[in-house]
Amino acid sequence: MAEELSGAAIRQRIDALAAISAQADGLTRVYLSPEHRHANALVSGWMREAGMSVRVDAVGNVAGRYAGHDAAAPALLLGSHLDSVADAGRWDGPLGVVSAIACVASLHAAGRRLPCPVEVVGFADEEGTRFGATMLGSRGLAGTFDRAALAIRDAQGIAMAQAMRDWGLDPDRIDDAARPPGSHAGYLELHIEQGPVLEQLGLATGCVSAIAGATRLRVTLAGEAGHAGTVPMRLRHDALAAAAACILAIEGRAGEETDAVATVGRLDVSPGAVNVIPGGVAFTVDIRAPRDAQRHRLVTDIRRGIATLCGPRGVGHEIAVTHELDATPCAPWLMARIDDAIGRRPATRLASGAGHDGMALRGLCDIGMIFVRCAGGISHNPAESVTDADAEAGARVLMRVIESFA
Amino acid sequence: MAEELSGAAIRQRIDALAAISAQADGLTRVYLSPEHRHANALVSGWMREAGMSVRVDAVGNVAGRYAGHDAAAPALLLGSHLDSVADAGRWDGPLGVVSAIACVASLHAAGRRLPCPVEVVGFADEEGTRFGATMLGSRGLAGTFDRAALAIRDAQGIAMAQAMRDWGLDPDRIDDAARPPGSHAGYLELHIEQGPVLEQLGLATGCVSAIAGATRLRVTLAGEAGHAGTVPMRLRHDALAAAAACILAIEGRAGEETDAVATVGRLDVSPGAVNVIPGGVAFTVDIRAPRDAQRHRLVTDIRRGIATLCGPRGVGHEIAVTHELDATPCAPWLMARIDDAIGRRPATRLASGAGHDGMALRGLCDIGMIFVRCAGGISHNPAESVTDADAEAGARVLMRVIESFA
Repeated sequence: MAEELSGAAIRQRIDALAAISAQADGLTRVYLSPEHRHANALVSGWMREAGMSVRVDAVGNVAGRYAGHDAAAPALLLGSHLDSVADAGRWDGPLGVVSAIACVASLHAAGRRLPCPVEVVGFADEEGTRFGATMLGSRGLAGTFDRAALAIRDAQGIAMAQAMRDWGLDPDRIDDAARPPGSHAGYLELHIEQGPVLEQLGLATGCVSAIAGATRLRVTLAGEAGHAGTVPMRLRHDALAAAAACILAIEGRAGEETDAVATVGRLDVSPGAVNVIPGGVAFTVDIRAPRDAQRHRLVTDIRRGIATLCGPRGVGHEIAVTHELDATPCAPWLMARIDDAIGRRPATRLASGAGHDGMALRGLCDIGMIFVRCAGGISHNPAESVTDADAEAGARVLMRVIESFA
Repeated sequence: MAEELSGAAIRQRIDALAAISAQADGLTRVYLSPEHRHANALVSGWMREAGMSVRVDAVGNVAGRYAGHDAAAPALLLGSHLDSVADAGRWDGPLGVVSAIACVASLHAAGRRLPCPVEVVGFADEEGTRFGATMLGSRGLAGTFDRAALAIRDAQGIAMAQAMRDWGLDPDRIDDAARPPGSHAGYLELHIEQGPVLEQLGLATGCVSAIAGATRLRVTLAGEAGHAGTVPMRLRHDALAAAAACILAIEGRAGEETDAVATVGRLDVSPGAVNVIPGGVAFTVDIRAPRDAQRHRLVTDIRRGIATLCGPRGVGHEIAVTHELDATPCAPWLMARIDDAIGRRPATRLASGAGHDGMALRGLCDIGMIFVRCAGGISHNPAESVTDADAEAGARVLMRVIESFA
């Protein structure tokens, strides 16, 4: 087998990318930064070594193209993102770019070409760390970049349009990054799982069934504050006790699904004093599911549960939807090829609860994703870690899927 | 009946006291303030009108003495506090002082004396608003003033000892305020309920069975933070979900008691982000019960419940006791006289979940308390309110108890 796919070789490049950081004691690499330019340059060099022609597109994505026998055939698109969250781990994003380049390098070393061209893209922004708006690179490539985002300012007050100009891009030419319809045979992304499922199953890789859709709720409960010593239990309208009942019901309802989740992540108590019965509580609910109908049922049941639990307690409730994004199913034909490449029957499929560039690319072409196990499911954290063996296993699965296009 | 006890007369004096405030648009009257001096002066005048000899003692309490036939007999002690919380209601404290003076005035108007002297005290500090330490007036009278409190500084940095000197008191002579053992036949306090029980029962007055003891816990739960999208429900160690289970268990356990309460008033979630599974939660529990053994059982069961609920969730817990104060039972013979004065059979007795000066006086003499209904159970709030009819009903009950000493 090609040494390009070895775990050690992949890790070396992951480490080289991790050294490109705005943060002295950790990894932070954001859109349109000097580090973005530096990472693109490093990746461009690897792409050229792998026999690819390279360009940086109108939104800052770096794209390498490995010619196929038929130059007019829709290209197989591979990739992931090169930007990071603040104080990030090194595997989230770069693993997919480095592994895809390794696969192309392996083809190149063997003097092989596919019928179709193979393109590897290092997306310029997926995390949205600098401007809040996410997946700017893949949206640019998909032709769905929202120009309103150009006015968003970063923490230093620099508008995205200005940052583009400063970096050498022309915000008036963003559309140049858009790929024409029909130009791609499919998009394949290798990514760390960012969750603990593969580790629990003892598996190095898995096939993603869908990128989950998400609904976020803000729930506000209005009870009655009172003296913690003088109001008997039976006369209370304790907003925190009502919230507690809601939280357990939300947990229980999500637990009935095998592949959906619901999380109460924030909760604020008012007035929040040791000797005062809570009069008000506000909490968030983050609901994710790989199937939209499933998520809608969950949201409906959670809304109903909150009403049912608060009513008899004399606690009022208001529920606002603060975010809503539909699921992105992976293409069955790509999943079948990934299953074959993994070589397990029945195949282990898992939904991605985290967002990925494939969500932005769904309008451009079919998508497929391969997950690689990461230690403890930990991500967005310097402790993010993948073994050499798992990195190699992931690259080999990706390689076999690519070869299926031969 | 004596017009001194009329609700309108009582309310007029309550209003006159409420006008003595450091706060232009509400009521705030704290220990050793100009308003404290002004309130003492107003009350002293009312006491003299009622035939009492008046003095301000070594900690700033104002005390009026109405002679009895036997000057050497232990005096019946009546009273409540004249200080307030910030942005207070006008009835909490003053009602007991004004009503007691009205009763003595009624005796005086009729030319009656009891065998024993009757003393009315307006305590200088019960709420602890200025220095944090509470019941400074009644502790001074009971001879249990903690001299360490003299070093406590108020929000302006003024130590209590200095504030005493500035006000005209000598902190070296605090002990002069202490009453000798055996000097009092009992302490009777009329106070608004500060809770909704009497209102719910449709009663103007009630007999207090005990001033509840209290235990406060600080509970810290350690789960595991994680991505709200990528960690399946079954693999979570959600500290907030565990806390929710604890809160419901605490509510349920306290609900098994008729006269005890438990409140989770503060709760802080870490990291507290919409898309992160809560890794840590800290919350407070305030447990109050009129009987110490009952409170100890509650605390034990709550501790056990927390352990039982967190263990299977893989969530660690730590519990610290941050406050503990035993209950003050009211004297059965005084409760019997109050029951007779109220004239209901069976008597309606209720525990006081809030603290009162009687807690400090327990070592000096037996105590009894009469509660008066307040609107909605609201207290420590400008909306605090008592009807004229209820104020009069309370004063008449107090009068009948006083007459029982004839």
